[in-house]
Amino acid sequence: MGILSEIKTPTLLLDERKCRANIRSMAAKARRNGCIFRPHFKTHQSRMIGGWFRDCGVDKITVSSLRMAQYFAADGWRDITVAFPVNIREIAAINELARRIRLNLLVAGPEAAGFLDHALAQTCGFFVKIDTGYHRTGIRAEDTSAVTRLLKRIRNPRLVFRGFLTHAGHTYAAGSTTEILRIHDQTIRQLAGLKRRFAPFYPNLIVSLGDTPACSIAEDFRGGDEIRPGNFVFYDVMQAMLGACLTDQIAVCLVCPIVAKDRRRRELLIYGGAVHLSKESLNVAGGHRIYGLAVAFRQRSWSLPLPNTRVVHLSQEHGIIRTDVRGFQRFAVGDLIGVLPIHSCLTADLMRGYRTWHGDRIDHQPRSR
Amino acid sequence: MGILSEIKTPTLLLDERKCRANIRSMAAKARRNGCIFRPHFKTHQSRMIGGWFRDCGVDKITVSSLRMAQYFAADGWRDITVAFPVNIREIAAINELARRIRLNLLVAGPEAAGFLDHALAQTCGFFVKIDTGYHRTGIRAEDTSAVTRLLKRIRNPRLVFRGFLTHAGHTYAAGSTTEILRIHDQTIRQLAGLKRRFAPFYPNLIVSLGDTPACSIAEDFRGGDEIRPGNFVFYDVMQAMLGACLTDQIAVCLVCPIVAKDRRRRELLIYGGAVHLSKESLNVAGGHRIYGLAVAFRQRSWSLPLPNTRVVHLSQEHGIIRTDVRGFQRFAVGDLIGVLPIHSCLTADLMRGYRTWHGDRIDHQPRSR
Repeated sequence: MGILSEIKTPTLLLDERKCRANIRSMAAKARRNGCIFRPHFKTHQSRMIGGWFRDCGVDKITVSSLRMAQYFAADGWRDITVAFPVNIREIAAINELARRIRLNLLVAGPEAAGFLDHALAQTCGFFVKIDTGYHRTGIRAEDTSAVTRLLKRIRNPRLVFRGFLTHAGHTYAAGSTTEILRIHDQTIRQLAGLKRRFAPFYPNLIVSLGDTPACSIAEDFRGGDEIRPGNFVFYDVMQAMLGACLTDQIAVCLVCPIVAKDRRRRELLIYGGAVHLSKESLNVAGGHRIYGLAVAFRQRSWSLPLPNTRVVHLSQEHGIIRTDVRGFQRFAVGDLIGVLPIHSCLTADLMRGYRTWHGDRIDHQPRSR
Repeated sequence: MGILSEIKTPTLLLDERKCRANIRSMAAKARRNGCIFRPHFKTHQSRMIGGWFRDCGVDKITVSSLRMAQYFAADGWRDITVAFPVNIREIAAINELARRIRLNLLVAGPEAAGFLDHALAQTCGFFVKIDTGYHRTGIRAEDTSAVTRLLKRIRNPRLVFRGFLTHAGHTYAAGSTTEILRIHDQTIRQLAGLKRRFAPFYPNLIVSLGDTPACSIAEDFRGGDEIRPGNFVFYDVMQAMLGACLTDQIAVCLVCPIVAKDRRRRELLIYGGAVHLSKESLNVAGGHRIYGLAVAFRQRSWSLPLPNTRVVHLSQEHGIIRTDVRGFQRFAVGDLIGVLPIHSCLTADLMRGYRTWHGDRIDHQPRSR
């Protein structure tokens, strides 16, 4: 069994072959559409996995914090967009990093624009964050006068307007792939409209979009210049439920020891809880809430999700998998079972490191606060 | 403002005075009841905070993993119960640790009992895990024949039966403090019954219980020998909602920079998301789901929860606080706002370190997988 025989506590197993296939496939789609591919590295937060993107020709990346930008800059990445509304308390670190790399910031409102205008000491790009319907943050796409007002606050020539950026996170609430495609078309239409409106004054503007559901399902990106999906590197149960991937494309799996069984309830108690998987959950048919799908291990792979077998409860370190008669008989106390995470970004962030089938250790940015 | 002026990114602030008061109060309650106080250290996972327990005379502790036991053993703790069903894949580490300290394990079923019976090489105590109604794991309290069968599997004289242990986690689903007290009485009655039944054969048995809601609300622990609450060290919004604490007793608060504001929706966008707070949530009146309560900072304290001001959405690094006109006007982009966590154990586990009002750094067991 190789790596599995070494595992004693919850371990995040990464299937390198699936992960590289996910990367190659998205890179090819960007190329076919003539889009800049600027993948979001917040999902994996790994320099080694970053190298697999380099193998596909990627040299521009997206991150979600300045610390993450520093982590990847130290590994030689020279063109980084921090796709998080600029946190003005970090201006010293921004100026330091912008001195060394081509850095793009995200401006979501006039306050941050005004602050950057006087405090930015290095050349730095910025995108205006556009709200295309997710309603988390940004200027509403139709509010071109708010965009104009924001841009008018910028007089500092070091602050270079690069374009419009959105995260159409409302695709995650879509009920069908058709609805995801509809949101995708709307998103591009809104961004392209803004670009047309402002291009006469800013000729090199680009529009940047690309959540994983839309980037996985859509084939046509005309009107978009850059895509920034992140989660697709691993995918997860949420993406599979949205139709953005097959469960067989999910590239990470939490390996959990079984510590007890309950025959009456047909439950397996696993070592693997909220501090490993996160409390992200999904409602499935019948109104049940699930925290992961269970798989069995074979030689050097894991199975498709086992029928009628789901993580139904998570405590801090425990998980409960409810199963059927076959699932219950299949596993013994001391065996390992796999859990496909609901949200791989959070699971990876919690686990802070991966093992491959070859036993290699793959890095994840360490936490240091 | 002292420490606050240093803070640039999400930081877990610990109010040492409140935390020490929580510890003192629970230690005094255990003393009044003649109970062993074996606090659960999974909430804080900190050697320095462990020292505050030592200041109150504590010398026995509970942890939720073998790694956590090793972390505290290395800090001089010599009597540790791992209140997690024994994971037989860690037998080597168990034998190593049991050589050095007084270690107690938790046995939840016959499989683990049988395994330990042949594989345990050091003297080690064990508790039988009893299910008093939470239905997560353990032998149902009324199933004394299953207890007998389990105990009959133990022939290894190194494996010393210490008593019965339960976690009455169903108090977390209680609708009132009256119901929590009813569960508490039931729990003690069930454990005391088991003790009476098995005491003739095992004269030094103890019964161990004590979730934070019951330990905070109940005053009478007759029939119980040991209590093991953990969360009370910090408390959190969930405990306040259950009536186990006042919001003013909550001893940790996530300090978050405000990065954007949306006037139409009266929302503050904060740097502080699922990777800081966890996705633990609560349903509150009106069917809304909340991920934390917001507080404002004063000199060296934080306010009571601000009226009509709640974390209503969490992404990986973002949070959205919805507020009213007053709350919206009170804060500017770049200001700090505090979030009281729904579940402090998970927030502390994610943040892996605390700052005090004095600026001290308080340790948290590092993650290394």
